[in-house]
Amino acid sequence: MHPKESSQLLYLQIADRLRTMIAKGTYGVGDRVPSVRAFSQQLRTSPSTVVMAYRYLEAEGLLESRPQSGYYVRPVPIQPDGLHPNALKQAKAEPIPQEAIDLYLRILQETRRPDLLQFGAAIPNPALLPLERLDRCLSSAARSVRRTGPVYDFPPGCEQLRVQIARRNLQAGLEVSPDEIITTNGCLEALTLAFSAVCKPGDTVAVESPVYIGALQVLEHLSLKILEIPAHPVHGIDISTLRFALDHHTIKAVLVTPNFSNPTGSLMPDSHKAELVALLAQRQIPLIEDDIYGNLDHDDDRPRVAKSWDRQDQVILCSSFSKELAPGYRIGWIIPGRWHQAVLRLKTGLNVSTATIPQRAVAEFLAAGGYDQHLRRLRKTYRRFVCQTADAVERYFPRPTKILRPRGGHILWVELPRPFDAFGAYQLALESGISLTPGPLFTSRDDYRHHLRLNCAYWTPAAEGRFRQLGGLLSKTNRSTA
Amino acid sequence: MHPKESSQLLYLQIADRLRTMIAKGTYGVGDRVPSVRAFSQQLRTSPSTVVMAYRYLEAEGLLESRPQSGYYVRPVPIQPDGLHPNALKQAKAEPIPQEAIDLYLRILQETRRPDLLQFGAAIPNPALLPLERLDRCLSSAARSVRRTGPVYDFPPGCEQLRVQIARRNLQAGLEVSPDEIITTNGCLEALTLAFSAVCKPGDTVAVESPVYIGALQVLEHLSLKILEIPAHPVHGIDISTLRFALDHHTIKAVLVTPNFSNPTGSLMPDSHKAELVALLAQRQIPLIEDDIYGNLDHDDDRPRVAKSWDRQDQVILCSSFSKELAPGYRIGWIIPGRWHQAVLRLKTGLNVSTATIPQRAVAEFLAAGGYDQHLRRLRKTYRRFVCQTADAVERYFPRPTKILRPRGGHILWVELPRPFDAFGAYQLALESGISLTPGPLFTSRDDYRHHLRLNCAYWTPAAEGRFRQLGGLLSKTNRSTA
Repeated sequence: MHPKESSQLLYLQIADRLRTMIAKGTYGVGDRVPSVRAFSQQLRTSPSTVVMAYRYLEAEGLLESRPQSGYYVRPVPIQPDGLHPNALKQAKAEPIPQEAIDLYLRILQETRRPDLLQFGAAIPNPALLPLERLDRCLSSAARSVRRTGPVYDFPPGCEQLRVQIARRNLQAGLEVSPDEIITTNGCLEALTLAFSAVCKPGDTVAVESPVYIGALQVLEHLSLKILEIPAHPVHGIDISTLRFALDHHTIKAVLVTPNFSNPTGSLMPDSHKAELVALLAQRQIPLIEDDIYGNLDHDDDRPRVAKSWDRQDQVILCSSFSKELAPGYRIGWIIPGRWHQAVLRLKTGLNVSTATIPQRAVAEFLAAGGYDQHLRRLRKTYRRFVCQTADAVERYFPRPTKILRPRGGHILWVELPRPFDAFGAYQLALESGISLTPGPLFTSRDDYRHHLRLNCAYWTPAAEGRFRQLGGLLSKTNRSTA
Repeated sequence: MHPKESSQLLYLQIADRLRTMIAKGTYGVGDRVPSVRAFSQQLRTSPSTVVMAYRYLEAEGLLESRPQSGYYVRPVPIQPDGLHPNALKQAKAEPIPQEAIDLYLRILQETRRPDLLQFGAAIPNPALLPLERLDRCLSSAARSVRRTGPVYDFPPGCEQLRVQIARRNLQAGLEVSPDEIITTNGCLEALTLAFSAVCKPGDTVAVESPVYIGALQVLEHLSLKILEIPAHPVHGIDISTLRFALDHHTIKAVLVTPNFSNPTGSLMPDSHKAELVALLAQRQIPLIEDDIYGNLDHDDDRPRVAKSWDRQDQVILCSSFSKELAPGYRIGWIIPGRWHQAVLRLKTGLNVSTATIPQRAVAEFLAAGGYDQHLRRLRKTYRRFVCQTADAVERYFPRPTKILRPRGGHILWVELPRPFDAFGAYQLALESGISLTPGPLFTSRDDYRHHLRLNCAYWTPAAEGRFRQLGGLLSKTNRSTA
């Protein structure tokens, strides 16, 4: 058993216990729950496990922490289940509306506008990344490649980099050899390769809902049908609904982002990951796992990847360095399990190879050490930025706007009260100098019309005023249309 | 009319005339044909046009030039039509044999073996490229991107680079604005995007035969059916066969490499290009043009792209810097014409964007000037290397091995006499320390079993001995199996 497994199960048990106490009225709204020290003594567990349980309930919206005071039952508890009213529907073969994709392209282009605060595209903030050091590695990598080659680093790609990736995956509970890894142009290309390897046009695949728009694009371009499975904003994909779907549909692959999914930020408990892997193994359905945010846990407690429970080599793990180190370098990877040879062929046929020098540069950076230190700093900053963005939303957006504070990543999923419309809010945000992404872009269906996704990586104190302005505009618009 | 058009028509006419004279016995085997000066005076045309005609017949194998002496009718004339005995067959939906793809992957991996001469994969020789200067541009590009962004260079990609590409395309007779260009990870990815934009799974596309194996991979991965149209090893795709195919099949796109196709090195005359574009325009079928070798004409006479005749915006031009400047950088581009918005969407959904810094580096390199000078040197070297490889093949390979000396690029297509088998020759070549590519990899059918493709970019005097050894092994094997 992975060392983290027992403690994670335990903190979820503690969270459950406290949730029951709150439901039964043992602690009412506004009450202070037991102190960490008291509760840990009572339960004979470590204080850090209790802290994890409290933070988990905080993310669920049941508790709030007040500095120097403790954890309290929240005045207006968020109802996580209220965040995604969609149910399982028929698999969808019609394309995503092209206007949605074009709006997404426009939001990507908004990253070039210095007048906007970048809460739109989910890009990392370069000011938080060690780019100067990385670029020095780039120059040095160019020199070594020039002297000793190779000209092309044909798939599986740069060996030095694959060694580093294999080492880093140990932290995610996964033991793989460098030979099992193939480098790609970022994580999205890894997803393209994964679906190409296991599906053919017309097949149906199951995804979480809401789901990352890039994944929707991949599925559409490969002519795959999309079946959206409701995902719990705290725990991720609903496994019983998925089981029901598997019973009633011929599903050729399942895509999940267990660790800090985009857009909800949900974190699948380890027990769910194990259950999911077992469920799909039993039915011999490949699981495609997107772990791009896995290193960005706010608690410095790197969650395991679902693939670490994979005994049949049928979980395909996809990730990249784009969110945490080198967005513009476009270096990602795929661990395709039993589809290794198929992915090698596909990658070569897609674009021959990933660029030689950027791969080598990332490898040199990782080999030089100090990466964990960088990650710790980054996590801390993202935790703070997500928190500050959430505070601003709570303070200025019309009530009752619902948010969940995620336990990792730099993304916040927001549900406006009805009748607020996501596209209208997007326009008003632009007027307030904020780029953001409307919720309907995260589904192939007509859904999430009141949701917004905020990228918190660019939080700045100046954002406060713009959020205040946006809140005001939203309230005014609502009054005028009411 | 483009200024080059009339002179090219003229030199083909001269070549035809001389071909007829040879056929009629006016000039017999071993005879010296009229001197360039005499013939140009007689025909009232420029000496350079006559030189072009002679070189063209030299490529066809009808003439040979002897230094300080002139052009002679070749002792053993090559019969170009004998090079490709395949006829038009039914469109093929079955996948390419996976063993062929796996052999191709093995040949790509052979580029890592310093014990082999690299006549296999069609990669450029880094010793011929200005990599030190390019890498300096990389460091400088990293610095500018770090200071002023962008983090991601979302499609259409780096503006400075698109400006340079637009300027360079003028030499190919094409006037486009930078806004019409989208950057990609190399030319193969551009082809993937092109076919994705104009076809859906199950559609049939027409390609030249033999055809670049990477293109076959793209078509297979997109679940497209392949109809191979015989291509003349000198003139390229046979337009009357293509017309026949269009009359009898529902063809959704046509792929050609008019300028120095891979593997034959054929160069489509301008009149054919114009005819092809008009034929497809009339039937509203998109033409996908691969121009990756277009800059590598041996005569410093950059041929026009077919797209320069495109009045309906339905030629999609694909190319890259991989063959002439920066193979490991993976920087290519696509000019998608009327499918611009579709390709923007597809590229974003494939891998979000092309790496930021390498794009900027190539742009800086081009902006600094001196690129034409580099190309002139490179062309001269490739001309020499192709010639020396061809000489070695003629000298050592069993008779009558057939070759055509191409007018551009660094690739030589060789036909061994029967019963020599391409896969057997590949094995014997490895034993002789030479990597090469067997002919059957360049078709989706069972064909080209006696052909080999040689990449001449790595010619070295040391190759002489290894070709001698290979020739000896080939002859010995044949005797033992005869």
